[in-house]
Amino acid sequence: MDNINRLREMNPLVVCITNDVVKNFTANGLLAIGASPLVGGEVAEASDLMKSASALLVNIGTADQSKLQVMDEMMKEANRNNVPIVFDPVGFGASRFRVEITEQLLSRHEVSLIKGNAGEMHALSGAESNMKGVDSKEETPVEEIAGKAYDRYRTPVLVTGAQDALMTGNGVSIMDSGHPLQGRVTGSGCLLGAIICAFLGTSDRFDDQSVIDAVSYYNLCAEKAASAQEHPTPGTFATKLIDELYLNDDNLLKERKVVAR
Amino acid sequence: MDNINRLREMNPLVVCITNDVVKNFTANGLLAIGASPLVGGEVAEASDLMKSASALLVNIGTADQSKLQVMDEMMKEANRNNVPIVFDPVGFGASRFRVEITEQLLSRHEVSLIKGNAGEMHALSGAESNMKGVDSKEETPVEEIAGKAYDRYRTPVLVTGAQDALMTGNGVSIMDSGHPLQGRVTGSGCLLGAIICAFLGTSDRFDDQSVIDAVSYYNLCAEKAASAQEHPTPGTFATKLIDELYLNDDNLLKERKVVAR
Amino acid sequence: MDNINRLREMNPLVVCITNDVVKNFTANGLLAIGASPLVGGEVAEASDLMKSASALLVNIGTADQSKLQVMDEMMKEANRNNVPIVFDPVGFGASRFRVEITEQLLSRHEVSLIKGNAGEMHALSGAESNMKGVDSKEETPVEEIAGKAYDRYRTPVLVTGAQDALMTGNGVSIMDSGHPLQGRVTGSGCLLGAIICAFLGTSDRFDDQSVIDAVSYYNLCAEKAASAQEHPTPGTFATKLIDELYLNDDNLLKERKVVAR
Repeated sequence: MDNINRLREMNPLVVCITNDVVKNFTANGLLAIGASPLVGGEVAEASDLMKSASALLVNIGTADQSKLQVMDEMMKEANRNNVPIVFDPVGFGASRFRVEITEQLLSRHEVSLIKGNAGEMHALSGAESNMKGVDSKEETPVEEIAGKAYDRYRTPVLVTGAQDALMTGNGVSIMDSGHPLQGRVTGSGCLLGAIICAFLGTSDRFDDQSVIDAVSYYNLCAEKAASAQEHPTPGTFATKLIDELYLNDDNLLKERKVVAR
Repeated sequence: MDNINRLREMNPLVVCITNDVVKNFTANGLLAIGASPLVGGEVAEASDLMKSASALLVNIGTADQSKLQVMDEMMKEANRNNVPIVFDPVGFGASRFRVEITEQLLSRHEVSLIKGNAGEMHALSGAESNMKGVDSKEETPVEEIAGKAYDRYRTPVLVTGAQDALMTGNGVSIMDSGHPLQGRVTGSGCLLGAIICAFLGTSDRFDDQSVIDAVSYYNLCAEKAASAQEHPTPGTFATKLIDELYLNDDNLLKERKVVAR
Repeated sequence: MDNINRLREMNPLVVCITNDVVKNFTANGLLAIGASPLVGGEVAEASDLMKSASALLVNIGTADQSKLQVMDEMMKEANRNNVPIVFDPVGFGASRFRVEITEQLLSRHEVSLIKGNAGEMHALSGAESNMKGVDSKEETPVEEIAGKAYDRYRTPVLVTGAQDALMTGNGVSIMDSGHPLQGRVTGSGCLLGAIICAFLGTSDRFDDQSVIDAVSYYNLCAEKAASAQEHPTPGTFATKLIDELYLNDDNLLKERKVVAR
């Protein structure tokens, strides 16, 4: 088990078509863990970038018609070059626009993983949305949501929350690490999507273990970041989360709490 | 007096059409205080988002023709749904473009509050601009500027500076908290606009007290953030300001310094 | 020698047309050192902004067709108003798009300095690109790259890396300060471009010494930021780098390590 070490040796190029709010935090998180971020990208660059990329993150957080074209072209070129795609439907259910572009992109391109918070993924699975903005108030268990979303898309899905559930053709895995302050730092879920890209970018094909390792490493780093303060606070916590992504290694993964069902 | 507690219970959705420089800081500040930020938004989303929003922030800091359309549509839908709007004319007077879009948006839509620094608000009141970029070198007293701006727009106005002046139909209130380092952190004024939105989003109608509480809470948090270091510095201060927005509660408001005239 | 003091007295307005990832960090770095940042700007604003600007930064990190127009117009107006331009071809060589817009902008406008990391500048000098994304894996000595890039463009060039090389009509200067963690903080190179703008914006004409001082001050601040932690980490380091830009003064420049050849 030397996933983090391998990641740092390979220094995978992760191209992130992500929302404007989290670009800096995402790039810093990827640099801290040992990946090479390229955040942004133009339609005309898709072909060149996907030839050297190890993975592609598509996050619809601040999408508009112009960014939709970039996403569409990047995903097409990613598929053509066998670059794995992680898709994050931020705010799915909060507007019809987000529903429409998600369905359009997912119908046109193959993705390796759809990840979102419980509210987004529940809406994505076909349940009536109770999304108010981009934060989840969802109370349905993540395992149940993951099952429904997988049934609908037949694509690996990750549902995040107090617990996280990964559902793939191999069954469901429940992960139980992390800290509540992650919900108070904007882009903490978006960065997780990018970190999963970095892990997926180090192997030739999708495997459940890479996603489980990525989620576990990230959430265990969050626990360590919080434990650095007696009364943890979100500003300092966000900085220390970046620090912990840099400091830790495969030993941290021994503390992961994962149940396969 | 339990405004902060009420805000945290209600967790108001604040939609922020704001500038590219401050999106992350704004979202983190809103999450820290207990609101739910949605930063960004497309023209096609305006109707859906304004149906669930508690308040709308419009900040013209990095506006262009495309963002102008988003602002226009969001403000129209906000008015239709009685969602209060805080308008921040960042850099007003630094270019004719900013003057024109501000006048266009304010002539077409009702806003609850216009807030800006002394240089911006002085130019907005009709004085000849001495704005160089987005930082204010204005020396006219904020109270005088607030009076002139109110006379021109007949809308509540907040003028920020070493002191802050709120002018409404009820008269003027001068607030005297804060720390000079706020001027060394980009978006510290922009975040204040978002925080005011969160406060306004918790009540059915505009009241002066919500704005006074928002400004006072924010500036007192800034004082506490600065006092955490013997020689305060802007990088650490910005992080600690987010921490303090999270840590404090209504007790902090007892320290506010407000004079009504 | 009172360059930092003069900068703080003059408070130069630095207009930054820069990439979405680093806008916040760039603005905070400029505010910390004592400059006045305006990040962003619309085509229609170019004429007004360049009349009051002290310097213009153009950074192509997340450029697209729309931003290309803004860059083109800002550079035209900067030339018209004798405003010095620092040009940063982020990711040059990673896509044909970035090569094309760089060559287009450099052929149409006069710039005071082209700065980039070793990989970008080597590709810019005509060498075959080995850029993968925006991070440099280049192993050719910076001095050699600076010579080639200068030969091609006959414009002052700065090549950054473990050492930094400035090549101008007066010859080459090698600077030897800084800390490896700068490579783990997104936008640390982009912010340097903006800091150089602030220094160039305080004098009437380009001089090598302003660039050498800017690079040295920035890199020495980075060393101090790293030395504040026993085991420095990138999240905390980035915050402390902003702090050090604010805290230090011309005394720090006594520690600079520069060799002219």
